[in-house]
Amino acid sequence: MFVVVTYDVGEKRVNRVRKKLKMYLTWTQNSVFEGEITEAKLKKCLAELDAMLIKCEDSLYIYRVKNSNNIKKDILGELKNYDDLFV
Amino acid sequence: MFVVVTYDVGEKRVNRVRKKLKMYLTWTQNSVFEGEITEAKLKKCLAELDAMLIKCEDSLYIYRVKNSNNIKKDILGELKNYDDLFV
Repeated sequence: MFVVVTYDVGEKRVNRVRKKLKMYLTWTQNSVFEGEITEAKLKKCLAELDAMLIKCEDSLYIYRVKNSNNIKKDILGELKNYDDLFV
Repeated sequence: MFVVVTYDVGEKRVNRVRKKLKMYLTWTQNSVFEGEITEAKLKKCLAELDAMLIKCEDSLYIYRVKNSNNIKKDILGELKNYDDLFV
């Protein structure tokens, strides 16, 4: 399964959230992670993230696409490699 | 067609980019727009945005899903309504 995860998380928690997402997915844009993942691993990842978030301030959107052939990604501008950044 | 557009754009240009995206899609998270759009309208929108971006600094990711049944969105934390914000 292919997932795109976007986040809007308070400054105090954002590094912890990024570190956790980096364990499971690829960091492709400042507020975006994506990649292939199993349902079981995604469930584990989201349970771990759920414990980190302050629900009334933070949000994480998880877009699941069962078959990656059903999603097409295009880029305008620069393709950055956030995954090499240290968090 | 359903699209998710994520952006990472320099501060000086971000309001213009948001205004343009709001003309075509729904602002659902700080760096995310999404919605149903025709290929022709998306092409027009992206051409207009292309002229605004500084290619070596900004990036826009466009995820196209032909049938919205192929994508499932879940939310952790708060569902904000960015679309009511003035930009």
